[in-house]
Amino acid sequence: MVFKSEAIVARGPFSEGKWAIEPVTLRDVREDEVLVEMVASGICHTDLHCGDTAADAGVPGVYYPRVLGHEGGGYVVQVGSAVTKVKPGDAVLLSFSYCGDCYVCNSGPPSHCINFFDINFIGEPVFSDNIGGRFFGQSSLARHSIVSDKSVVNVSNLGLTRDDLKILAPLGCGFQTGSGTVVNVAKAGEKDCVAIAGMGGVGLAAVIAAKNQNCEVIIGIDRIEARLELAKELGATHVINTTGLEMKDVVKKVKEATSGLGATICIDTSAYPPLVAAQVDATRYMGKIIQVGTGMPNANLSIHMQSFMVSAKQYFGAVQGHSRTEDYIPQMVQWWKDGKFPIEKLEKVFDFKDFEKAVEVMGRGDVVKPIIAWS
Amino acid sequence: MVFKSEAIVARGPFSEGKWAIEPVTLRDVREDEVLVEMVASGICHTDLHCGDTAADAGVPGVYYPRVLGHEGGGYVVQVGSAVTKVKPGDAVLLSFSYCGDCYVCNSGPPSHCINFFDINFIGEPVFSDNIGGRFFGQSSLARHSIVSDKSVVNVSNLGLTRDDLKILAPLGCGFQTGSGTVVNVAKAGEKDCVAIAGMGGVGLAAVIAAKNQNCEVIIGIDRIEARLELAKELGATHVINTTGLEMKDVVKKVKEATSGLGATICIDTSAYPPLVAAQVDATRYMGKIIQVGTGMPNANLSIHMQSFMVSAKQYFGAVQGHSRTEDYIPQMVQWWKDGKFPIEKLEKVFDFKDFEKAVEVMGRGDVVKPIIAWS
Repeated sequence: MVFKSEAIVARGPFSEGKWAIEPVTLRDVREDEVLVEMVASGICHTDLHCGDTAADAGVPGVYYPRVLGHEGGGYVVQVGSAVTKVKPGDAVLLSFSYCGDCYVCNSGPPSHCINFFDINFIGEPVFSDNIGGRFFGQSSLARHSIVSDKSVVNVSNLGLTRDDLKILAPLGCGFQTGSGTVVNVAKAGEKDCVAIAGMGGVGLAAVIAAKNQNCEVIIGIDRIEARLELAKELGATHVINTTGLEMKDVVKKVKEATSGLGATICIDTSAYPPLVAAQVDATRYMGKIIQVGTGMPNANLSIHMQSFMVSAKQYFGAVQGHSRTEDYIPQMVQWWKDGKFPIEKLEKVFDFKDFEKAVEVMGRGDVVKPIIAWS
Repeated sequence: MVFKSEAIVARGPFSEGKWAIEPVTLRDVREDEVLVEMVASGICHTDLHCGDTAADAGVPGVYYPRVLGHEGGGYVVQVGSAVTKVKPGDAVLLSFSYCGDCYVCNSGPPSHCINFFDINFIGEPVFSDNIGGRFFGQSSLARHSIVSDKSVVNVSNLGLTRDDLKILAPLGCGFQTGSGTVVNVAKAGEKDCVAIAGMGGVGLAAVIAAKNQNCEVIIGIDRIEARLELAKELGATHVINTTGLEMKDVVKKVKEATSGLGATICIDTSAYPPLVAAQVDATRYMGKIIQVGTGMPNANLSIHMQSFMVSAKQYFGAVQGHSRTEDYIPQMVQWWKDGKFPIEKLEKVFDFKDFEKAVEVMGRGDVVKPIIAWS
């Protein structure tokens, strides 16, 4: 039974005007898939990474035509024969997908699934005319989409309204990445001094989480003053505006904010090698530098082996905050209901017809998290 | 009450013939010090790092005259007024010292004490004529030495003979570093595939520990065939002779030994950046690369940020295997008594008068762990 709907189809880079709302026809759901009516979808820089790059630029994960979007929320319309976690009518929030079979999925966080790239960045066609779908298992920039059951989190028992789903749609990517890095990966606590580089959606969610964990010092680092003001409002005890600063000055300011010792945890969302190197310098003995921002394909970090070894600092990456989405997304919803996860301060909702405006404001930095809602 | 004895005094680099047995006079012990009669002391490359480098080379921690040696074992002669852990006549094994006051000492492994370098590599004069002592809190290349009480581990209740102390003297540095990295830092277990680069005393102790932990795969990497044969005898399931190999071939061989997936734990004692980079490549998702060898002052490791982040590999250093020496040294003694820590296979005992021969065979690689015994 094919299903007719509409979607924002990227037929080339966004900045060349090649995204448009088009009628689409969806193929049948397979046994492990769910047909979802989207209420809304957040937009994230990863959508632009894959949807504003030339197809012939040689960047892995970039192809056209496809439907992007990977922060969806909505209602189940139809389920495949093997799906037991949801039924038609259930409210759902969507997140990344994973294979469920590899050695990481069997024991570690599924966000480090060894097949993550193919499953989430390539996906597969689900729309007519060979238009790519299942981006992050969901391709949520569509009024209806066919979603991997691994991407689906049932939130139907949490008493959420349709308007709530708009606000909560982006939980499954940037917000869980930032907060999950603080809570699940770093397991930050009262004695921690956390520095966070980059006050986008990920970094600001990390600030909120660090505040909830009662971290002693929370340092927000960015070059946009408005973002730093927002960081302070959300719980940052210190902010550093990097505009005009040399990296050694950034290190000095982090140390000044941490009794001269340095941060116990640095969370980098910038992936800018000089700033990551500064965070390594600004981390105290036994501290962690957690790479959350994805580096450019040619970006390398140079680590001075002797001092790094002696200091027992740890450098590692973490994808999606190591979230076990079926537990962690309802946890974030509860924090939001309790007033401890005020993501609405970062968001602005746009009607789907205004998707170009939504993408543009994010690109300019005016809005941290634009959300596209299907009216 | 000054105390007269003799010591191997380094008045310049070993290879210039500037180490000699000299009469020395020891100052009084302070309240937190112990006068120890050495039975024996292992020799380690760190003794040569500090004792075979020109004083004007600008290498931190190098000065003359001084007494080196940091793997001592012997008997207590006299204790300072505040020392309660030992009394005269007690058998002791010696290890590194630490401040006991810094934030790392207060909560983390004392081998990452933020004052480790000054305390262990600089020490202070304890011998006449301003000859430096307390190298690693002990300066054990002396018939008698004044030792920091933090370096002293009481083994008097373990039933050890004087000859046992000769064999066990080196426990407090290289052997605890190698085995402690496997047991305390990596917490390796049955499902782990461990690759160890460098089959010196540290690396071979890691092989022994990995065997005791029943690790699934244990890969020894070196360029000296005799060392690799010893590794196999001690428990390595695979060995890789790097002679004539390109680094990509080393990666390939590690993967071949680990079902194509790569090691779960790499322990590097080489500090050779291309080999460390190969170990990063040869580590599977979620795996650890543990830097144990101390890099040269100008050595840097370049990490490809994007792939490293996605794979969630961790890079960090570990000093002295994070050993809590008062527990861990008796633990190693017990393993040795049980036949599970056959360090005598790595050792050769030299009379103190033959110290030059002992150092030379280590330098050439003929003997993994030469021990100098005070007859």
